[in-house]
Formats: sequence, C-alpha cells, structure tokens
Amino acid sequence: MAGFNQLFVPGPTNVPESVRQAMNMPMEDMRAPDYPTFTRGLFTDLMKVFRNETGRAFIFPSSGTGAWESAITNTLSPGDRVLMSRFGQFSHLWVDMAERFGLDVDVVDVEWGTGVPVEIYAERLAADKEHRIKAVFVTHNETATGVTSDVGAVRAALNAAKHPALLFVDGVSSVGSIDFRQEEWGVDCAVSGSQKGFMLPPGLGFLSVSQKALNAAKTAKFSRCYFSFEDQIRANDTGYFPYTPAVQLLRGLRAALDLIQEEGLDNIFERHHRLATGVRKAVDAWGLRVCAKEAKWNSDTVSAIVVPEGIDSADIVRRAYNGYQTSLGVGLNKVAGKVFRIGHLGWVNEVMMCGAISAAEMSLRDCGVKVQPGSGVGAALEHYRLSAQPAVAKAA
Amino acid sequence: MAGFNQLFVPGPTNVPESVRQAMNMPMEDMRAPDYPTFTRGLFTDLMKVFRNETGRAFIFPSSGTGAWESAITNTLSPGDRVLMSRFGQFSHLWVDMAERFGLDVDVVDVEWGTGVPVEIYAERLAADKEHRIKAVFVTHNETATGVTSDVGAVRAALNAAKHPALLFVDGVSSVGSIDFRQEEWGVDCAVSGSQKGFMLPPGLGFLSVSQKALNAAKTAKFSRCYFSFEDQIRANDTGYFPYTPAVQLLRGLRAALDLIQEEGLDNIFERHHRLATGVRKAVDAWGLRVCAKEAKWNSDTVSAIVVPEGIDSADIVRRAYNGYQTSLGVGLNKVAGKVFRIGHLGWVNEVMMCGAISAAEMSLRDCGVKVQPGSGVGAALEHYRLSAQPAVAKAA
Amino acid sequence: MAGFNQLFVPGPTNVPESVRQAMNMPMEDMRAPDYPTFTRGLFTDLMKVFRNETGRAFIFPSSGTGAWESAITNTLSPGDRVLMSRFGQFSHLWVDMAERFGLDVDVVDVEWGTGVPVEIYAERLAADKEHRIKAVFVTHNETATGVTSDVGAVRAALNAAKHPALLFVDGVSSVGSIDFRQEEWGVDCAVSGSQKGFMLPPGLGFLSVSQKALNAAKTAKFSRCYFSFEDQIRANDTGYFPYTPAVQLLRGLRAALDLIQEEGLDNIFERHHRLATGVRKAVDAWGLRVCAKEAKWNSDTVSAIVVPEGIDSADIVRRAYNGYQTSLGVGLNKVAGKVFRIGHLGWVNEVMMCGAISAAEMSLRDCGVKVQPGSGVGAALEHYRLSAQPAVAKAA
Amino acid sequence: MAGFNQLFVPGPTNVPESVRQAMNMPMEDMRAPDYPTFTRGLFTDLMKVFRNETGRAFIFPSSGTGAWESAITNTLSPGDRVLMSRFGQFSHLWVDMAERFGLDVDVVDVEWGTGVPVEIYAERLAADKEHRIKAVFVTHNETATGVTSDVGAVRAALNAAKHPALLFVDGVSSVGSIDFRQEEWGVDCAVSGSQKGFMLPPGLGFLSVSQKALNAAKTAKFSRCYFSFEDQIRANDTGYFPYTPAVQLLRGLRAALDLIQEEGLDNIFERHHRLATGVRKAVDAWGLRVCAKEAKWNSDTVSAIVVPEGIDSADIVRRAYNGYQTSLGVGLNKVAGKVFRIGHLGWVNEVMMCGAISAAEMSLRDCGVKVQPGSGVGAALEHYRLSAQPAVAKAA
Repeated sequence: MAGFNQLFVPGPTNVPESVRQAMNMPMEDMRAPDYPTFTRGLFTDLMKVFRNETGRAFIFPSSGTGAWESAITNTLSPGDRVLMSRFGQFSHLWVDMAERFGLDVDVVDVEWGTGVPVEIYAERLAADKEHRIKAVFVTHNETATGVTSDVGAVRAALNAAKHPALLFVDGVSSVGSIDFRQEEWGVDCAVSGSQKGFMLPPGLGFLSVSQKALNAAKTAKFSRCYFSFEDQIRANDTGYFPYTPAVQLLRGLRAALDLIQEEGLDNIFERHHRLATGVRKAVDAWGLRVCAKEAKWNSDTVSAIVVPEGIDSADIVRRAYNGYQTSLGVGLNKVAGKVFRIGHLGWVNEVMMCGAISAAEMSLRDCGVKVQPGSGVGAALEHYRLSAQPAVAKAA
Repeated sequence: MAGFNQLFVPGPTNVPESVRQAMNMPMEDMRAPDYPTFTRGLFTDLMKVFRNETGRAFIFPSSGTGAWESAITNTLSPGDRVLMSRFGQFSHLWVDMAERFGLDVDVVDVEWGTGVPVEIYAERLAADKEHRIKAVFVTHNETATGVTSDVGAVRAALNAAKHPALLFVDGVSSVGSIDFRQEEWGVDCAVSGSQKGFMLPPGLGFLSVSQKALNAAKTAKFSRCYFSFEDQIRANDTGYFPYTPAVQLLRGLRAALDLIQEEGLDNIFERHHRLATGVRKAVDAWGLRVCAKEAKWNSDTVSAIVVPEGIDSADIVRRAYNGYQTSLGVGLNKVAGKVFRIGHLGWVNEVMMCGAISAAEMSLRDCGVKVQPGSGVGAALEHYRLSAQPAVAKAA
Repeated sequence: MAGFNQLFVPGPTNVPESVRQAMNMPMEDMRAPDYPTFTRGLFTDLMKVFRNETGRAFIFPSSGTGAWESAITNTLSPGDRVLMSRFGQFSHLWVDMAERFGLDVDVVDVEWGTGVPVEIYAERLAADKEHRIKAVFVTHNETATGVTSDVGAVRAALNAAKHPALLFVDGVSSVGSIDFRQEEWGVDCAVSGSQKGFMLPPGLGFLSVSQKALNAAKTAKFSRCYFSFEDQIRANDTGYFPYTPAVQLLRGLRAALDLIQEEGLDNIFERHHRLATGVRKAVDAWGLRVCAKEAKWNSDTVSAIVVPEGIDSADIVRRAYNGYQTSLGVGLNKVAGKVFRIGHLGWVNEVMMCGAISAAEMSLRDCGVKVQPGSGVGAALEHYRLSAQPAVAKAA
Repeated sequence: MAGFNQLFVPGPTNVPESVRQAMNMPMEDMRAPDYPTFTRGLFTDLMKVFRNETGRAFIFPSSGTGAWESAITNTLSPGDRVLMSRFGQFSHLWVDMAERFGLDVDVVDVEWGTGVPVEIYAERLAADKEHRIKAVFVTHNETATGVTSDVGAVRAALNAAKHPALLFVDGVSSVGSIDFRQEEWGVDCAVSGSQKGFMLPPGLGFLSVSQKALNAAKTAKFSRCYFSFEDQIRANDTGYFPYTPAVQLLRGLRAALDLIQEEGLDNIFERHHRLATGVRKAVDAWGLRVCAKEAKWNSDTVSAIVVPEGIDSADIVRRAYNGYQTSLGVGLNKVAGKVFRIGHLGWVNEVMMCGAISAAEMSLRDCGVKVQPGSGVGAALEHYRLSAQPAVAKAA
C-alpha cells in the first residue's frame, strides 16, 4: 500500500527524525576510553526528565517490564507486604509480577476506567500501624483504559500516615509526556521505557530511584543479577555498564534527551494536554465517550474510546490497519472488544492527530458506527487552532 | 516543533521508506565491473513508466529543467520554429527557455486555469503546409494551476494535419502519477524529474525519447555537452555514464521503480484520481473552487485552490508552515496571492490527505476564510472510505 | 578525526549495510494483525543458526547476560548442584551469576588460556551416581582469552556417564560464527546475543532450548517473570511477545538472518577460520603468541595476543584508539595488561583484517614492541590470497 | 560477500557518517519560508573552501562536468580563443568540451605524467599582445595520472604578461583536499564537484567565480539556461534556486562543510599529504613507480601506479574488486592497462590506506607482480606512525 503508515498506538511511538538519524550509525565499542564522557551526560539528563534530583537512574537493555522487575527484586524481599491496585491490563500485569515473585500483595480492585483509589490507600496505610506494608504501587497512567492517577495524593496519604513504605510508580506511558515529579512526590522507584514519551524504539527500560530505594537495596533479599542495582552502580560509576549495553539506542536516547530539553518539559506537558483535549472533543462530537469514568481520570497520553453496544472494537482497529494503514490500539483484557485506543504521546502534533481522528472516523463508519463524517476532526482542529501559540482566531 | 513535518507541495514529494533505506548507503564506484548489470535494469524499467517501448531513456544528474534543455538542444537547431502555449508558471518558463535558446517560438497564450489549446494547435498545424514548425510543446500537467492537458488530442491534431513536427511533453508532474502513454501518443521527448511521481529526492532529470527524436539529434545544431544524447548513448550502451552519475539517487530509483511495478501503473493512476477527487470534494465543501476552469482540466496530481477576494493565499501557506508544520504550495506568478496548492502525488494515501486538508482548514480559518471546521476533511474521508478497495459502506 | 573508525573488538561487531538499512525505519505496532507473519519466520530461522531442530528459541530484549539468567531461572531451582569451569572473564561471570542465584556450584578452575576440562567433567559426572548435578555448563568460546572449548566432547562425557544433567552452553561469541550443533550435541540451553555473529547492535538476547529444557521449566522453582519461558511461549505461539519487543532490532535480525542464509553457515565458519588463521600468522610473524595455550584451543572469532613482559597491553589498545581510530579489545581480569584482543567475527573480510593488523603493528611499535613493520600484515595477506576462492597464486 | 566494501577510487569518495546521517531525511519544501536561512550559510561556507573572498559560488544539481559547462557558457562567446593543455583523460575531456562549444582552442599537448606547461603558457601569453586569448585553462589535479599542476605559477605568468585573460581551474579532485587559493591566485572560474574532497555522493557541481567572471557573464554570448549565472544569481540572492535543487545533497553539504571547518583546511591538506606520502612509500617498497614523471607533479589526492610490462593493470583492478571487495581506479585512455589508481582523498585515514595497500598487494601478487608481501603496507604504516600527531616513536 502507498503512503506512510500512521502510528497511533500508545507505544511504540513515532521516532523523531533526529533520533532516527542518530541511530543510523556504525557499531562502536562500549569500552572505548571516551565512552564515559558520553554515558555520564545520559544519566544526568535522564534524571532531569524524571525530575529526580538526589537519586540515580538505571538504563537496562529491556522493556519497561524489566524495569518493574528491577524495582521489585532490588528493594524488596520475598514475602514483603505491598499495597497495589488494579484497574487495567498494565496494573493487572504488575500485580501478577508481584505475586509471582512471592510478595504478599494487598490488591485493591477498582472499576476499570477509574484509577488508584487514594482514599482506600490512605485507610490501609493509616491502619498499618506496624508498617508491614513495605511498598505502595501506583500505575501513574494505565495505558489500557487511558486513566491517569494522582501520584501526589498517594504521597500525601503516605505522609499523613507517617508511613515509611516505598513508593513505586509505573510511569511507562507518563514520564516525559505528562507532569511527573519524582523528587517532589517522593517517588522511590519510577519505571519507564524508551518507546513512549522518550520517542525511541523499544529496547531500553529506565528505572529512576531515590536514595531511600538505594538504601533498601542493601538489605533486599531477592536474587538478582541482570537487573541488579549493585552491578549497575559499580559499572555506571566508571561510565560503563556491567554487560553490553544497547549502544544504538543509547545514541538515540542522547538525541531524544536533546529534543526534550530543547522543547522543555512543561511545554511538552502542555502540548500533550492540548492534543489530548482535541481528541476528547472529537469523541464528544462523535457522541461517544472515553473509558475514563470522570474527567479527572482523563489521560493526556492515550484515549480509550468506548464503542456502542453491538460493535466489536477490534473490527475498527483491524479496519483502520488494513484499510487506512493506521495503527490504533486494541482493547485489552476486560475492555477487549469494547474500546479502541488512540495514542497521543511522544512525537505528535496537530496535523498528525487530525489524521488519526480521520482514520478513526472512516473506520468507525465502515464498521457501522454512525458518526458524522468530519465531526470529530472538525472539533479537534478547531480546538487546535484556537489554542495554538501564538493564538490566531480570525474565522468565526 | 514536535511531530513530523507534513509535505504537500507538488514536489518534492514524500519519499517511501524503502527508497530512503536504499539511499542510506556507503558510496560505490560507478565504474565497477558489475555496475552495468544494475544500470541496465534501471533504463529498462524507467522506460516502462513512460510507456516508451521503442525509444530510449536518459538519466541526467539535474532537475527536470535540465531535461527540458536536453530535449531542445539535442533535437532542434537555432532559429527552428516551435509551437508552444502558456497558461502557468511552468509552461511560461519552458517558453522562456526556448526563446533564450534562439528558437522561433509561436506562443499561444491562453487563460490560466485552462490548458493546451488543442483547436488552435490544430489550426496552426493545418496551416503550416511547409512544415516550418519543427516541434510542438505540451505541458502535460501545469503544476502552477493544477491543469492537465490532453496530449493524445495534440497527437491527433498532428496526425490529422499529417504534420511531421516533433512532440515534446513536459511530464514532470504527470509521469508515473497520471495516465501517460509515450508510445501510443507518439511523444518524441518526454521530460520528467525524480522528485514527483518517482518519489525520490530531486536531483535526477529524466528524458524519454522516441527513435524519431534520436534521429533528429543527428542533425540538430545546438552546441551541447553535459546534456548530449550522443555522449550518453555511447556510455549508456556499455552500462556506464559519460560523467559521474548521482549513484545514491540511482539506488533510490531502483527501489522506486520496484514500488511502481509492485503497485502497477494503472493502480497508481486510479489511486491518484481517488485521492484528488477527495481533495476536490473538500474544496467544494468549503465553498471554494479550484483554479482549473472546467472539470476536464482538473489535475489529479495537484490542486490549486482559489482563495476569496481580499485574502492573500501566501498568508495561508505561511500559516500552515509556521503554525502546523505543513508545507502547501504557494501561488506563482499571475496566481501569486490568489491560489494555494495541495500536492496529492507520489507516496500519498487517504490519511495523509486528510491531514493536509485539516491543515488547510485550520490555516484558512486562521486567515479569516469562513470554511466550516471539518467540512472539507469530512467530505474527503467519506469519499475515500466509499471508494476504498474492498468497498465497505456500513454507516449511512 | 577523519575517516571511518575501525571496530575490531569481539563484539559489538560491524553491522552489515543491509541490516543497517533495515533498522532505518519508522516505528511500528508490535500488535499489528500481520506481525505474526513476520515473527514466525524469525523464530524458525533463528533456530537454524543454532542447528536446533526440535526445541524452540526465545528472543529477549536484553544482552546475552539476560539469556544466561533466563536459562538458569527457568530450568533449575535454588540449591541445585551444577558443574562449571572457569578460565576467563566470561566463564567467571557466569559462575558468579550461578552462585548469586543460590546454585550449588562445583567450579573447576583451570589455567586461563585453556578451556573446558573435559576429562575432569567426565570424572565428576561418572562419580555422580546419584545425579545430583543438574546441569553442566560450557563456555563454548571464552571471549576474554580467545579459547574455544569442545562442546561435543562434553556431550560424549555426559553420554558415557549416562548422566541426565542438562547441558548449558554460552555461545555468545560462537553461534553463527563457528561450528555449533545444538541438536547433534544435545545442548539444552544455548545462549547467544545479537552483537556478535548475528552482526546486529547489542540489545537482543537469544536462548535456544531443547524439549528437555522446556520440560525442566515445568518444575523449576526460581521466581521469574521478565525472562520466563512460560510467558514467552504463550505469547510467541500467537506470533506476539509478552511485553513490547525491540522491534527495530527484530527488523535488523530479519536482514541478518537473510545474510546468514545467503552465505550459508558452513561457508561462514570457513570464512571465520580463514580470517582467524591469517591473524594468527600475523602474530607468529611478530614473534608473539596468542593466549590460547595450545592450537586446539584457538578461537576463530577472537585472538588474545600476549604482549612482551614490561609492556602494558592497555597502552596498545589506547594508542590504537586514540592514534588510529581503531578499537581493539582490552585484557580483562587476570589477563588485564597482558593481552590485547582482535575480534575477527561477524561481518569481516580480508581487507578489514589487514587494516586491523596494520593498526596493531603501528600501536605495538608506538608502545615499544619491536615487531617488523609489515611483517604481520604481509603474513596475513599472503595467507588470505592463497586461500581465496577461487584460488589464484601467481606470484612466488 | 561478507564485510564492508572498500572504496579507493578517486571519487566518489567515502561519505562520513555525519553526512550520511544528515542525508537520511524526509523530503522538504525548497520554497519554505525559512529555507534561505539554510542556503545562505551554504554559499558562505562553500566559498571558504575555495578561499574565494570577493566573488560568489554556484551550486548546480549536476556533476563537475556541468560546472565546466557553466564556466564556459557564461563567461565566453563562440569563437573565443582559449589556451589549454592536455595530459590526461580529464584535461582531454575539457578540451573536447571547449572545442564542441566552438571555442578556438590552442591546445598544448604534453607528456602524460606531467602537468600544465607553465613555461609554454608564459610564452603564449607574452606573445599574445592583442589579447586574443580570452581564457587560460588549468587542470589543477589530473585525476587520470595523479598529477598536480602549479596554479599559482600560471597566475604569475598571466601577471608577468599583464594579460587580462580569465583563469579557469578544474579543481574537481583538488579543492577541499589540497592547497587551493582562489583569491590569492586570481582564479576566475574554479570548478569542483560534491563527490571528491567534499565527501558527498555525486550530484552537485560547484562553480566558484570571481567578480571578473561575473562581469564577463554580462557580455558572454553563449545560449544558456540550466547553467546560467543570471538565473542562479536572481534566485540565490533571495535564498532560493531557479529550479528544484537537490535538497538531500544540500543537507549533506551542510554536514560536510561543518566537518571541513572543524578539521580546518590546512589540517586537511596536511592529512592528505601525509596519507599520500605513505602510499608513495608503498609504491617505492614494491619496486614500482607512479605515473607522475617527477616528484613535483605528485598528487596528494590520487596515485596512478605503473604496472610492469606484460601486466594488464585492468586485471589488478578487477581482481581487487572481485577477490577483495576493493574498488581501485582503472587506467583511462592512453594509460589504460598501464596504471591502476589509488584514491587517497576525502574521508580517509591511516588504517583505511593500509587496507587499500594490502588489497593492492594481494591483487598485484595474484596477477603475477612479485611485490614482497607486506612491503608496501609496512613502509606506509611506518611512515604514518612516525608522522602521527602527537608523534610517538618507540620501536626502532
């Protein structure tokens, strides 16, 4: 088929040209004398994206799942009690991992379309006078349902209860795209991956940790090697890695971090909010709704759109792919068949989003959903132009 | 700015990924023993795109302008009378070149928005009993106004008059995108360039010629060296070039020709017609009109859209570029300020066109043109989905 | 500095142009409907490189170290007794991992420069009537010393003892470069990585396993998630992955597997032997020797060259890098300062090796080692030309 | 075949990685509002490479041959008398072009292996009291024979004769590689191309001109359009081009000019001299000689090496290509079969040259030339290391 494929899954996201150019490289020796000069800047600038000021960051050749595993196995011990919540495929998988590693998981199940139940967390923490809970887990952005949770509120609950538990955050589809403040929120283990807000191909797992997490690693009893903090620290401190790093992706990471610094984190967050708002206006114009139950849960990185009864959302995704060369996200697990997803994170802009909405409109109509042609994209583009900087608003 | 730039000028056009990959190469020796194996396939397959069966094709490191010059200087002599018509910036420039080379140019000026005046050509040819006219020039697709002329009708006029003049066609923005039949239409010199339907970066000029043109070259008296047929033929016949060819673009050309063969010329023409129709439906929905005066002149590779009185079309193009990272075509020469252009040729598809139309809608409204948000893109996308293969038409 | 950097470390190795082109790609959705068509071919062809006919292969976003960990955690249980040997940095690190995971490691330490002590292994296996040894580990090619061990002989020892232990092989710097026969040798877990014989950037860990290993996974008691066989199998069987795979490297892997199939494994092994022999002839001509104690240990993928007393091999490596833009391998651990290494695996040919040897000669002389200028490269190139196919041997 | 191809023809030359990365780009609009910001820097920095301070430079989508044609057709008129000399294939072709354009060419034929006969030029100029000679042509570096001529001496001859003729220099294989001083030497038209010292793929012709040449263009009577100064000036002055420029190569040119500025022209000249000297020492060690008759003619960008009687140099080139994936230059025209050429210009360094010499040694021996294996590369590498910066000279 002709023309460019259009990628609007919530990761992998589109790779900027400068990142792509940087990865178009011959191989290099990761033990070269001048390699540390390169790697040190990476770690420093990576921490800035997490707004981690006093801890350190690890870069694993892995997916974000590997970084989850690193967080658990380096700071906890078998049988440790942890507080988690489940409201989507990714929070579900994290619970599953914790259970498989033998943690004593206190899972709070809440409705899909909502997020971390801060009040319940607050109660449990307040009740846990003996501090048996060793860690509290927050899926910052549940990619399956397009729900963003309030990390700061969980920190407040911990503080209110004067609870010493570690705070773990899955920021795979949030860090670098929406507001995340590791230092301010006292996040001990913040997990992310290369293929979302970092605008890289998948293949790097990031784990940004606090000094408290580093201290916890000294007594944590899980076996670990590949994902060991200690090995990384020993090598990273010399500018190298304990085993061969993914050198091509590291060169891409450099270019991506440069782009992030150039645009500025706050501008990036604002751009994501603006683009996401346009998508939500399109959904409204279609007469449909997003999976997030209330506006406060709305994610600025991905929207899960609920299809009408009797329609299989998988058909819409398949139609967009086969008919219009456009990748949308399928519904996963409990919302399989019920939602399709539009990723609006990373290297995206207004016109790209109008393309995504257009593809969705064609596919919805092809599958029998009677949205008005042009209604969604019209609502979105009018929002985009009215909110553009510098503002221009001639037509009425 | 974030996200991909969107390119909808009528050339350079978007480069397919496989072409881009093919050009991501180390340098090579254009005198290598096995280079002819490579070049021979290029010439053969290039001729197929022109539907030239009995002549030959030349590949110059140049723009299409160079191929124009090659056509003139190799087949004509100073003072030769030629019949040309002018109805846009590119037909104008071709006339200018002919005059500067000292040809005796009979220019027929017709209204911009119309094309080659076949009836007038027929009269002049019928009247030219002494066959003083040595060549008849046709701008197949006037890129400045979005007008396609009828090459076959000019051939018919030549035949009706039993006139031996050479037939020159500027196919820069037509060949490989819309129906072109060199053999059937008896085109003697067909000019094109790499950066339009061939989906390559600019840098190659193509000239596809008939045996009649090759014969004419034997007596043509212009001085020529860089663009000489004779030098090319001598070298090309051995699989090489008379001077260093643009080897990187040649590798890209191989990939582009493969894509063209894979999709099939007739399918490519159909795709261009379908995408162009969608754009024209958008223009209708906006309440605007294209520059082409009648439907028969409509170009399937570029639409020039007339803006309302009091609006400067250059503002719209500038707004799209600065505000929405989208390159549209400006109005040139007589239609400067009056039209903006959307290129819909080469490596394009439905969603890309919806993006282009969305960018145009935002820019039009920003500049005070009261098009209904979503009206154009809605009209286009509904056309695209209803004409998609295989057809799917559920929503009413 | 000008000109291309020269890479002759034993991994990462040079990436072929077609692999580089394949990785120059926009991102794609790893959940696309047609993705399984792509992934299935990868698994099938990857197994062929291991000559694994009846098991299956796993592809992890990781380094080879991750694949080591996967082998251990999926097929063994804490406290299991394993038989290992140590004779270089990489066999050392594997022992270290096994110990950290709580295996009961019977380590046989042998002189660096020799390899797996098959006779001792045979004795231990014969003595282990109760089959307490659950797995036997073989570092096929010790990258630190340039020593290749005899995997087939270890299989013979297992068979002679009628011992049911699993056979683990570290083939990171052997598979795809030198003779490896998983099926014939009954290797249960064969580990490799993308950045050596597979000619890719680092970032993929490969684990090719037998049915026996898959069965062992059913009762193995280590916690595991990221590197779990079970999760991979469930997803891979549908053509997908349990978490986001490194899609860019997977496209590169496709291109690399195509190159491997095109050249043919046996031809690849023969090429590596020929190139390695040339390097060893150069070492002889210099009056130096390789670290491998006997010819039978010589590795065809990397040569560790012993420098004269009083010379620090790290100076030579540094000089080659800073003075001649050439990356050679440093000595690691016990042979730090004593050897430097030339990698001759992957996408290499005669002229590249002559360049490597030239760089080594300049650096050796700069550091005070009195090798005769041109002696090594002369010996190597004469070997290369005399062993070239088709043979040409005019000059005497 | 495996491993990288090795390119040592005297153009196209090896493309640096940063240039390759810069050309790995999506297409762009050459009429974009901010395009002039980009192009202006190109012209400014291009002139610096020619050391042209007061004239201007033109960039054509063409080969260097096109720039030759531009120089002639814009500054001369049919029938003008010009003084040229012929001593190789490229000076021959330039004479041929001048004759075909109807210039009255006074050709001085001198032995191949020598260069511009300054004394004869001086005589002719002194004798031409009526100033009938309108231009004097100098092939600065004759690529076919590896001969560099003395441009400054020709300027001195012109000055001594107080002769107003224009000075034309073919600097295709010299500018950016060896000392060239347009302003100081009063060169009026200096021709070059992208694929030599500029380290780009072929496809751009450069013409750097003096104010005197620009004045001459006002009265020059050749027809011209594609290569017209006037059209270029009018467009370039606005930051654009008169027809579609080769935008991808222009982005590459930016990266190449950055590299040139970073290394510094004088350092580049010194590097070329050092690398060329090594090649000549190799030729001496082989017992062969270069085509240049005296040391003063030696070119620092290409060496043409004379093979012994009874040997066909084309066999050596073919053997290097087919047997060792190495491209050497063939002998052209009068020296066909008699010389082979090693290009040592552009993005080259010591180890690359050792590879080239190694390939030549293998090929020479394969073809029956009894050079001592390692003799040439040994002589070269010893020169390289002794002349390296900073100098290191331990081994005796």
